[in-house]
This record gives sequence, C-alpha cells and structure tokens, in this order.
Amino acid sequence: MRSKQLVYKVDNLSIDNNDLMVNETVFHNANGYIGIRSNFEEGYPEGYDTIRGSYINGFYDIAEMKQAEKLYGLVEDKQTMLNIADTQSIFLKINGIRFNMFEGTVLSSERWLDMEQGITGRSIVWRAPNGNEVEIVIKRMTSFYQLSLFTIEYAVKALNFSGTLEFESLHIGEVSNYSNSNDPRIARDSARYLMAGRAFLEEEASYLVSHTVRSGLSVCTGVKHLLSKPGSLKTKIEGHSAKAAIQTSIEEKETVTLTKYTVFSDSLRKKDYSLRKKDYSLRKKDYSLRKKDYSLRKKDYSLREKDDSLREKDCLKGAMEEMEKALKLSLPTLYHYQKEYLKEYWDRCFLEIEGDDDLTAAVNYNMYQLIQSVGKDEYCNIAAKGLSGEGYEGHYFWDTEMYIQPFFNLTEPEITKNLISFRYRTLEKARENARILGHKKGALYPWRTIMGTECSGYYPSGSAGYHINGDIAHAVTAYYLSTKDIEFIAEKGAEILFETARLWMDVGNYYRGSFRINCVTGPDEYTCMVNNNYYTNVCAQHNLNWAVKFYHLLKEEKKLSPVVEKIHLAEEEIKEFDQAAKCMYLPYDEKLKINPQDDSFLQKKVWDLEHTPKEEFPLLLHYHPLHLYRYQVCKQADTVLAHFIFEDAQSLETIRNSFDYYEKITTHDSSLSTCIFSIVASKLGLTEKAYEYFGDSAKLDLFNTHKNTKDGIHTANMGGNYMAIVYGFAGLRIKEDGIHFAPSIPKQWREYRFKINYEDSQLFVEINSMGSKFSLLKGSPKKVFIRGKRYELKDTLVV
Amino acid sequence: MRSKQLVYKVDNLSIDNNDLMVNETVFHNANGYIGIRSNFEEGYPEGYDTIRGSYINGFYDIAEMKQAEKLYGLVEDKQTMLNIADTQSIFLKINGIRFNMFEGTVLSSERWLDMEQGITGRSIVWRAPNGNEVEIVIKRMTSFYQLSLFTIEYAVKALNFSGTLEFESLHIGEVSNYSNSNDPRIARDSARYLMAGRAFLEEEASYLVSHTVRSGLSVCTGVKHLLSKPGSLKTKIEGHSAKAAIQTSIEEKETVTLTKYTVFSDSLRKKDYSLRKKDYSLRKKDYSLRKKDYSLRKKDYSLREKDDSLREKDCLKGAMEEMEKALKLSLPTLYHYQKEYLKEYWDRCFLEIEGDDDLTAAVNYNMYQLIQSVGKDEYCNIAAKGLSGEGYEGHYFWDTEMYIQPFFNLTEPEITKNLISFRYRTLEKARENARILGHKKGALYPWRTIMGTECSGYYPSGSAGYHINGDIAHAVTAYYLSTKDIEFIAEKGAEILFETARLWMDVGNYYRGSFRINCVTGPDEYTCMVNNNYYTNVCAQHNLNWAVKFYHLLKEEKKLSPVVEKIHLAEEEIKEFDQAAKCMYLPYDEKLKINPQDDSFLQKKVWDLEHTPKEEFPLLLHYHPLHLYRYQVCKQADTVLAHFIFEDAQSLETIRNSFDYYEKITTHDSSLSTCIFSIVASKLGLTEKAYEYFGDSAKLDLFNTHKNTKDGIHTANMGGNYMAIVYGFAGLRIKEDGIHFAPSIPKQWREYRFKINYEDSQLFVEINSMGSKFSLLKGSPKKVFIRGKRYELKDTLVV
Repeated sequence: MRSKQLVYKVDNLSIDNNDLMVNETVFHNANGYIGIRSNFEEGYPEGYDTIRGSYINGFYDIAEMKQAEKLYGLVEDKQTMLNIADTQSIFLKINGIRFNMFEGTVLSSERWLDMEQGITGRSIVWRAPNGNEVEIVIKRMTSFYQLSLFTIEYAVKALNFSGTLEFESLHIGEVSNYSNSNDPRIARDSARYLMAGRAFLEEEASYLVSHTVRSGLSVCTGVKHLLSKPGSLKTKIEGHSAKAAIQTSIEEKETVTLTKYTVFSDSLRKKDYSLRKKDYSLRKKDYSLRKKDYSLRKKDYSLREKDDSLREKDCLKGAMEEMEKALKLSLPTLYHYQKEYLKEYWDRCFLEIEGDDDLTAAVNYNMYQLIQSVGKDEYCNIAAKGLSGEGYEGHYFWDTEMYIQPFFNLTEPEITKNLISFRYRTLEKARENARILGHKKGALYPWRTIMGTECSGYYPSGSAGYHINGDIAHAVTAYYLSTKDIEFIAEKGAEILFETARLWMDVGNYYRGSFRINCVTGPDEYTCMVNNNYYTNVCAQHNLNWAVKFYHLLKEEKKLSPVVEKIHLAEEEIKEFDQAAKCMYLPYDEKLKINPQDDSFLQKKVWDLEHTPKEEFPLLLHYHPLHLYRYQVCKQADTVLAHFIFEDAQSLETIRNSFDYYEKITTHDSSLSTCIFSIVASKLGLTEKAYEYFGDSAKLDLFNTHKNTKDGIHTANMGGNYMAIVYGFAGLRIKEDGIHFAPSIPKQWREYRFKINYEDSQLFVEINSMGSKFSLLKGSPKKVFIRGKRYELKDTLVV
Repeated sequence: MRSKQLVYKVDNLSIDNNDLMVNETVFHNANGYIGIRSNFEEGYPEGYDTIRGSYINGFYDIAEMKQAEKLYGLVEDKQTMLNIADTQSIFLKINGIRFNMFEGTVLSSERWLDMEQGITGRSIVWRAPNGNEVEIVIKRMTSFYQLSLFTIEYAVKALNFSGTLEFESLHIGEVSNYSNSNDPRIARDSARYLMAGRAFLEEEASYLVSHTVRSGLSVCTGVKHLLSKPGSLKTKIEGHSAKAAIQTSIEEKETVTLTKYTVFSDSLRKKDYSLRKKDYSLRKKDYSLRKKDYSLRKKDYSLREKDDSLREKDCLKGAMEEMEKALKLSLPTLYHYQKEYLKEYWDRCFLEIEGDDDLTAAVNYNMYQLIQSVGKDEYCNIAAKGLSGEGYEGHYFWDTEMYIQPFFNLTEPEITKNLISFRYRTLEKARENARILGHKKGALYPWRTIMGTECSGYYPSGSAGYHINGDIAHAVTAYYLSTKDIEFIAEKGAEILFETARLWMDVGNYYRGSFRINCVTGPDEYTCMVNNNYYTNVCAQHNLNWAVKFYHLLKEEKKLSPVVEKIHLAEEEIKEFDQAAKCMYLPYDEKLKINPQDDSFLQKKVWDLEHTPKEEFPLLLHYHPLHLYRYQVCKQADTVLAHFIFEDAQSLETIRNSFDYYEKITTHDSSLSTCIFSIVASKLGLTEKAYEYFGDSAKLDLFNTHKNTKDGIHTANMGGNYMAIVYGFAGLRIKEDGIHFAPSIPKQWREYRFKINYEDSQLFVEINSMGSKFSLLKGSPKKVFIRGKRYELKDTLVV
C-alpha cells in the first residue's frame, strides 16, 4: 500500500569516495541498541577514506581532552562512543577471483533501504575479468526483535558458470575510532580505545571480548556463519580477530547463501547489578590509588585485571546466550518479526502526504531513522547522530528534548518515558556538574554527555547553554501534558523540575525589580555568554512555573512527600520559584517591537549575509568565535524557537516582527534551524515559506546539504522535520486546556494525514485545502481547539 | 652612602624546599639578555623540587597547545622561553668529602644581593662530618658590561685543616623546562625543547650548541674555568654535556678560588642577517614541504640539518668570541664595570624614602629587578616574570606598556624606545593577528607573545583583551610626551597608532549615535567578553585622538608622507578616527554616579567577599570562569586604572565614587592591582589608604605574598610600585600642557626624594610634610604645574 514511500533506493552505485562515505551513513542499520555503518563487505581500494564502524548506544570510554590553558572546572575528560568491532568484512572469490566493485565490470548495481521490512540491501550483477558473471544480493538487518543481533545475508547466484565459491569472513576486534583534526564537529584524535580481552572459539563461532581503558566496561561480540548448502567452514583466531574460511561449489543458475550472525553483549547492561556495583567500587578504589601514588599503579593494574576478568566472563556468557537465542529462529522468522515490529511502528506514526511521494518518502526516511536511533533502555538516549556515525562522538544533547521527544510523545510515549528516565538516572551527575560550575544548589544538566558528566570542551557554546535545564524540564511537562501520567511525575519528573528550578534561583538575580539571568548562552551558538537571552529566560520561567504547578498537583494527589523529603524541598522555595517566574525579565525592544535575542544583541553590527561568499558557510569554519559573537548573526533559531515553544508569552504581532527580523540574519548553519522556521512560518500563515523551510529540512541527509552526512545523520532535524508538518502545517499544540490545531496546507499538496496519541486516545487527522477532518480512532472523547475554537471530538469532526 | 638599602640579605638560610624555590627567584641574576636562577651549585637532596633554569630573553621554541575543541582561529601553537643549559653545577670535595648544606653542620650561612655591585652571593661556614671546617663564599654576576657573560666566583677557605680540594663542575646541555599541570599560570607540560648539536672542547673550554625543534633557532653556551693556584684541570664531553674535574691542594687558612665563566650566543641575534634570511626561507620551504607530503619529510630533514649547521657554526663562533672577550679582562675589572654601570643607573633612577629604610630597600629591589629584566635590544621585551623563572613562559604582556614603561620613560627613555621598537618590529604579526580575528583592516597586538604571534590559549581572558592595542598606543604617546621625540614618532610610533586606530574602527560600530565596542575583555580578568568596557573605550578614544594628533603634527613637520604612503592612509580615515573618538560611548550610571565597568556589570550579583573563606583566593583557582563572570567581582583595577591613566575623562567626584565602589569588590588576585589602587587613593587624598596599598605592592615578591614567587618575580608590580610613589604620592603626570605634580606624603615618612628625566632636563624632587622642592639638575627651564597651578622651574622651586 505505502511501500513505494517506504523504500529508499539508489541505482548505479557511485564509487566516488565521498559518495561511499555518505552512503555508509544513509544506509546504516541500527535498532537503538546497536548501529552498523553500511560499508562494503569487501572494502574499498587502498587509499580510500572510510568510517568502518559498529557502535553500541551508551557504551563509551573516557578520552583525554586537554585544555590549552587549564582553568578551574574546565572539562578535561570526555566520554566517547566506541567503534566496537568489525564484523562486516566478507570477501568473496568465485573460481579464485576476488569480487570487488572497483575491478571487473559492474553490469548493474543498486542499494536500498526497505523501511517496511527493516532491511538494507545491495545487489550487483558483476562480470569478473575472466568472464564469470554473478548476481550478488546482500541484505543486512539490525533486529528490533532481538536488539543484540546484526545479520548479513550474502546470496551469490552464478549466472554463466559453475565452479568454486570461497568466502573469507572476518571478525576483527582491533578497531579504532575515526578522527578529523580540522572539523570541530568530530573527534580530533584517532584512538584505539578497546584493549583485547579473551578470544574464544566454540562450534566455529568466534567470541571476542574487549575492555575499555578508563571507563571500566567490557563488550563481547560473537560471530557465527551458516551456509545454505554443504561446504567446509574453518574458523581460526589470529591476535584479537577471527577469520572464517568457507568453501563450497556453485552450479550455473544456483544461488548459494552465507548468513553471518553478529551478537553484541556489553557490561553496561549486564544483568547482575551487584557484580557491577562491586566492579565500580573496585574501580573507584583503583582511581584513588592511582591518584595517590604512581608506584601503586601495578597493584592497581592487578585490581583492574581482576575487575576485567569478572566482566569478561559475564559478557562472554551474555554473547553466547544471545547467539543461542538468535540461532533458535530461522532468518525468515527474524525478518518476519522485524516487519511486524515496524508494522506497528508505521501504524502508530502514520503520516502521508498526498501529492508528494518524494517528500513522503523523505519524511518516512526521517521517522525510520528516529526509531533506528533512539535508545530502548534507560542506559542510553538518542545521540545527535544516532548510531550512524561518529560525529559528536555519540553524545546526547538538548536535541533529544526539544526536537525528538515531541515526535515520540505523539507516537510512542513509552520511549519519551525512557528518555526522561535517562535524565533522571543522571540527575546526580547533574547536581555534581552544578557544583563544578559554582552553584550551591540545584542541578545543571551537561551540554553533551553519554553517561551524565559534561563532555563539552569549549564551554562558551557548551556548558554555558544553561537552557538545556529548561529544555529537559519542558520535555517532562510536555510528556505530562500528552499523557497525564502523574505517577511518573511523582516518581521521577517532579524531582527533575525542582532541581532545575533550584538552579535558576542560584544562577539568576533580581535587579531593579526583575529576575535576570546573566552570562549564559542561548540556542544560537554564534552569540555566546550573554545576559538575559530571551529563549533562556522564557524557558526558565516555564521551568519555575511548572515546578510550582507540579508541587501543587502532587500535593493534591498526596504524592508529594517522597520527593520533598528526598531533596529537602521547602515550601518557601516554591514561593521563591513562583516569585521569580512572575518577575522574569523578558527583553523587549520598543522600537522594533521584537524580543531581542539578549540584552545587547541589537547594539551589535548586523552581519552582511548578502555579501558573504558562499564558500564561507558554515561561518564557524571560517571565522573566529569572538568575531562571530560581535555581530548580529544567528547560526540557528533562538528567539524564533522561543516563539514556537513558548508562543503564549508574546503577541502574534511581536512574533511576526521577530520572525521577520531574525530571518534576515540567520544562516541556518545548524541543522536545528530550518524546521523551526518552518513551524513559525506556518503559525504566521506564511505557508509557502514554511514549505520551503520544510523542504530544506526534509532533504538534509538524503541530499547531504550540510556536507557532513558522512559523519552521521542529523536526528534532531529528523524530529524537527516531523514537527514541521504536525506542529507546523497542522498547528498542533498540547496545552493545559487541551489539544489545539490550526491547519494549513502547502499548495503543492493535495492532502496530508497523520495519526497521533493523546492521553488515552488515538486521533486521525486529515487536512486538505477544503478543510480538516479529525477522527477518534480509540480512547475517550476529547476537547479539541481548532484555531482557538473549542469542539468536542467524539467520533469524527469536520471543520 | 645608600648601601644599606642596596643590599638585600638573608641570614641562616632555610633549607625548606619551598623557601629554596622562592630564593631561586629572589636571588636570580639577570641583565636583560640572560637570566640564571639562584640554585645551589651543589644541588638539593633527592626528591626536592627545583626550577634549575638559565634563560635568554626572546629565545624561544614553539610548543603545541591543543585546544579541547578546535574552533577557527584558536591558537594551537605557542612560543615558550627555553631553559638553555645548566652551567651552575659545581660540586666541591674537601679531603674527599662532598660539601652540601643538608649534611654535616652549617655553622653559619647567608645569602645576599648587592644591588650596588650587581652581584649575588652566598657564604657558608661548614663543618664536614670529619670535623674539617671551611668557609665558602660564592659570588655570581650576569654582566651588564658584557651581556653574554655569567660568572661564578667560588672561594673556599680551609679554616682548620689542610688537604685536597676537588671541584667537579658541569656544563649540561640536556635540560628541560619546568611544568605544573595544575596551575594555569605556568606551562602545563614538561618538555625537552632543545636538540643536541655540536659539542666542542678547546683549551679546556667546553662549547655546546643546541637547536630548537620548531622555531629554527640555535644557541651555544661556552664554559671555562680558572683556578687561583696551580692544579689539574681535565674537561671531557659526555653526551651533550661537559664535565670539568679540577684538583688542587689547600693549606689551613688558605683561600682557593675557582672562577667559572659562562657565555651565551644565540642565532636570534647573530650578526650575519643575510644568512638568517636564507635560513628563514629554507625553513619556510621546509614547512610547506612538510605540510604537503609526509614522505618528503626526510628531504625536509636534510634541509633542516643544513640549516642547523649554518646556525651552529655561527653560534659557536659567537660564543668563542664572547669567551675571548670575557677572558681579556680580569674578574675584578668586570666587577668594576658592573658597579660603574649600576652607579649610573642608580643615579638616573634615584629614589629615597627617609624614615623607612625597609621600604626604600624594597623599592630599590624592585627597580633593580627592572633593569635586570628589561631587554636591551629590539629582539626582546620585558617578560611578566623577567628572566627569573618560567611563569607565563617568558611571555610579554601589556604589563610592559602600562606598568613598566612609565618607569623607564622617567629614568632611561632609550629603553622605552627599545620596547616600542619591539612592538614596531612585530607590527606585521599584529596585522596578521587582526586578520585571524576577522578584522579586515588594522593591527591587533597579541595578548601574550615572545616573537609577535598570539600565544594565548584561552581567548576570553587573552586575545579578547583588545585594550592592549590602546595600551601600546598610549605608551607611544607617553614616550612622546616625555621626550618630544617626533623623529621616532615619524619613524615608528605613528604607524603603530594609525594601525591600532584602524582596528578600533573595524571592531566598533555606531549605535544610536554613539560609537561602541562590543565583546571584548577589559583589564579585569574576572569579567570577560563584555560590551563597552569603560577602560577599553576610553583607551580606544585616546588611541583614536592621538592618531589624529600625530597625523597633524607630522604634517606640520613635513614628516607625514612616508608612513601615509606605506600604509595607504587616507585623510578620510583620519576624519573617521576623529568622529569615532568624539562619539565614543563611555558608560555612566546616573544612580551610582560611577562609570560601570561595562554595560551590564552593575546588573550582576555582588560577590560576597566578606564571607569568602581565605583559602578560596585567588578565586581563579577555585571557581569556574563562567561563575566568576556572572558576579560583580574584580581580579584587579579596571575602571580604577582608567581613572588613573585617563583621569581627565571624568570629574573627581565620579572617580571618587568609582574608587569606593570598585574597592569593595576587588580581590587584587592580580599583581597589577594594588599599585594602581594606591595611585588613585593618593589622587583622592586618601594618603593612608594609598600607603597601605603601596606596602602590599612593595612586599609582593620579597614576602612572597602571592605564593608564586618561585615561578618568577612580578615585573609589572615592580614598575607599578615605583609609580605608586612618583605618580601616586608625588602626583606626577606628563600631559600636553606640561609636567604636573600633586605632592602628598604618608605620615610614616619624613621625606622622599627622586630624580626624573623630562624632555631635555633632569629634575630632582624632594617632598616632605612641610612642602615640596623642585630642582632643575640639568637642561632647559620648564613649566611645572603644582596642584594645577603653573610655575616656572629655572633652578629651584619651593612650594
């Protein structure tokens, strides 16, 4: 039915190095736990650049990040997502001739991502230099049914010959992370993080255990091969790698298939929690020993070895169990479960644009990447690049809360709950972070992190982005408004809001009657360390207000005591929150009738974007930060974002003026920008402009418009792209008084329709140029506001 | 006559490690070209920390300074002053027993600095474990007569025995720089910079040539020994070191003296300039080769070798010539020349406080350190720590212009000329620096440097300190006002002023009628990246005004064309300078009637200094910069400095209010602060307060009040300390209309007197509580303003 828009296909594969690297990202497989880039199994010619990576969400080591000058509190260690192992490599020889796409003749080739099946594929018809012709079809899957499992199904059909078929399939434990010393957006230093642990063979399956150097984690990968017909299979361990040599014969027109199973098992998630705690205390001791005395290092090392061996056992056992589990089912059965999982997913997040199959396909692609990328447990979150590459080193940012959670709130609130649980799990680290930054109370979430500590090396556009606190508080509130799940607020959400609210009280101060927040950085990274960033202040106000609201709500529900007692929250503090929210200073310029981005933004020179040569974008790669900060120029939506998220804080006229003003000085050098401009343009009735911004956002990765898709997809933009339709064109807002719509439709579309969850119900929305139709698919009747007018949705509503 | 105040002496030497390290600094020898820390010749016990360094002013290598996140334009290489060689080590054995102060019995000991003789000394009476008693007197000198020369005169007197005397004297070429990874004020990484070049023996003199790794410089040290009586002397080379074994006999009551000469010769200053240029072009080529292709490195290496060998020859020759020169004169003759040089110096900078010998001694100590530290040629300047230690890595800051040049303007204007010439010589690098920071025109001097490029790793309190441009411009103007040397302005000074003025035009912008300067850092490093820092703006205004004045002055004198043609300066630009200066925005708070430090300073929370525990100072070692920036708290004089330097910009009432306001929130964590507070307190008639601040400033290094004297002296404070008397108590100002005084005297003093140069004249000023006496020692009669009233000084004037 919708399969056309659920397949993304490329014919006549380019073998240009840059295209290959982009496609490694675009066709990667992931399931929220593991991610594998789509490298050619047989590799590229020598000298080609490649990022040949396999990743586990939340699995990290600690890397040194020295500051040029050491100042108190500057971060000098960061977590970094690790390349775990290479289990992609498979070399094929037909009649002794090695297949690769850079020699012989490629008669036809294609690559696809089937988002309905949850499988990527590559098929090639190839003529070897000796004239033998083969059809090769390779399918890959990271299973949503069994998160630890990655499969490669490698089918070879002899088109015009008979003879021998040899596979050499590798399982490489000695891998490094990718680096580029010139791009601030990816890691600077190439590094081998994993140390070799045990290598083990059982029933021709290879298992390699590796240990991190500093984070005290272990991982085991297991690889097993199945051949569709009899043949010989010999596996041997060499160093910290395993090599399987597989041989069989092939007849003309016959198809022979090799299936390669990889399973992952990591100590971060190992079942025996008590063991891990012991591990941890060992390591802490180990660390203090190390600090104390260098000569004790050896002793420390022996502790580590003991520690490693405990984890080794555990991971190895885990991997073997996972392998056993995977092999119990046939590959077709696994494919079937994959499709079932996705069928439900596509149903829940159903979205269709009639009249624009390409855009529907792009939007589907984006939604698919979100489910591929998002963590499925509380040990992880969703990285800026998902699990598709090493850009931003697997770090989690505010992107999660402001760009991605809105999508899951509407389609799979359980995932939002997970994401918030991750923040709750790391709240203690946020408290520690607040202390490092000098705050006596409250919690300050890190700008970028994997396990909860700050990993930002350049604090002016990192740790100074205090708005992340308000963003997380906002996400908790948004989850509550979508679900009314007061239990979860009592259990986790309220504590987050109280602690973030406390922080604002410590950061801000009263001056001439109003509450002000100095020396922070708003969303726009081209203007740093300013006073009263409008977005930050309005975000803090919301945070403070909702801390007060949750306090009273929980009190009414008699669920307040546990959290209040836990964090010693005084009633007096709630009054202070309320007072500060009421007195919050929101800068407004009387002359321009806009909200200035911050106190001094409008005093600065306006950047001459019109006369800036194209090759100077993104500006951050061509101008010193100090220079950028001195101009009115925005990397991304900042005040405009505030006008979307906190729209009720200003009149429509002010929002319109602001939009016009900031639009002229925004470069959209950040991928977090065009989607927001699209939404606010929709709000202002500028549907055609909204459509343009939406198109820019939709195409970002598939067309590599930011020229860095090779480093990974842009997950925030993907969520934002969805929002540009549902919050943008359809004008959805979920507020305290109920659910709102303000439908519009670009003239290029005939109709668009989508399903969303809201509280206990599921709604179906159909919008075309004649009107809108709202249907209650399940759940109880709902109040619905259409352009501010209240309706009752019982069954169907046509407006 | 004044010898008491010209000797600083310590009895009963402490052998506490920390005291030893402080004394390495306090008793160091330097002459502006070389500096040698005062380590014990025989060393300390194992495990003792020490900074055993010898330095050459301006001689550097380039060290990597990686940024935690790479952003465009951030500095990733810095110059660092090198530890050149160890020629201090001399081990003495009497009758086979090795002398050291940590074994046997020290019967008496003292250490002194004789500032009249220009010599430091240590004398010890020591009883060996076997009962042998010796008196050891060691004198050290870095010659002002022959800048390349360092001498150690090591005299041993047998008090109660006869026997053998053995010296082992080392010349070590393999040395490292000191490091401390926890203190932002000194280098983080210990490093060997110098590579061993040729080692050479001639007539028992050893010569060691070393090459820098990246800066393309070479240095040769030569060491030669003379014994006061016959004995054996054998020198041998081991690796890149030389060891001299000297043996003789000693009779009871006899004194035997070993004299050790060290000479330094470096390629930075080598005579054959054409050779150096060739060298340089070789290196440039070499560098581009290296960038292009790694495989070419070998070739590149051979180029370097050729390059190194050219410099090697040259340096070795230089060192041998210097040694020959040194040996032509006897040591007493060298001592005599040293004293003669200092006699003239002390005469020119004569300053005496009657009634306070200790403070006179401290002030003399400070003045002595200034002549020890200041560069004597245009290849160097005066480092923040002089040549006394490795703090701030030998870098030159704005300290030179604002704290040290005022002293030399009044006492030895030729040195000021040298210091300005250094800035002129590096003007091209300042232009390059401006481009890196995004400015299309003008020059921006680096915040810290050795050879002219920016070495600041943390730009918010480094490169963002744009006021350094105005400071340098002010120093040029101050030199002109002191000397009326219009030739020098035509030759060098005006070009500096025009280029710095151009930069302000590019940095600033008009907003609502006034000219504003956004996103810079003023002198106070606890508040960074602000808009309209009062000091910066008033400094820029002065810079622009004087660019206009010099333009017209040179035009009148018909000296304008060369510079105007060289830098393509248009008359239109001069009008723009004038206009911007007239419209310069100088923030003023109507309510407090003070100049706010910057646009938003007064909105911030006031730091509670009263309740900050003592151990939390300096705050920079205990608080994250972002936290500091969010408070009203000053590391040092900022607006108060402006009120001294640019006093005519505000009314006395405003200055008084500002002083009161900022005094309460200033920690004086910077050594640049108390002297300025002293001067402004004097101006405001707060003589007792001024006296207190003056005392704090005077004692800084001798009493190690900042707890980091081990890393070197604080030269800026030393200049500032002088200013606190002459500009502070005596109220000296040199303005366009003439020379001004506003005498005051602390009640602790009976009288103070000093000599200064002004234009073609020398003045002698005597001030006591009854009145002041001004005498014209030489030169033409002068207009003198005493507390604003004009007098004619022909011979003597009593007011």
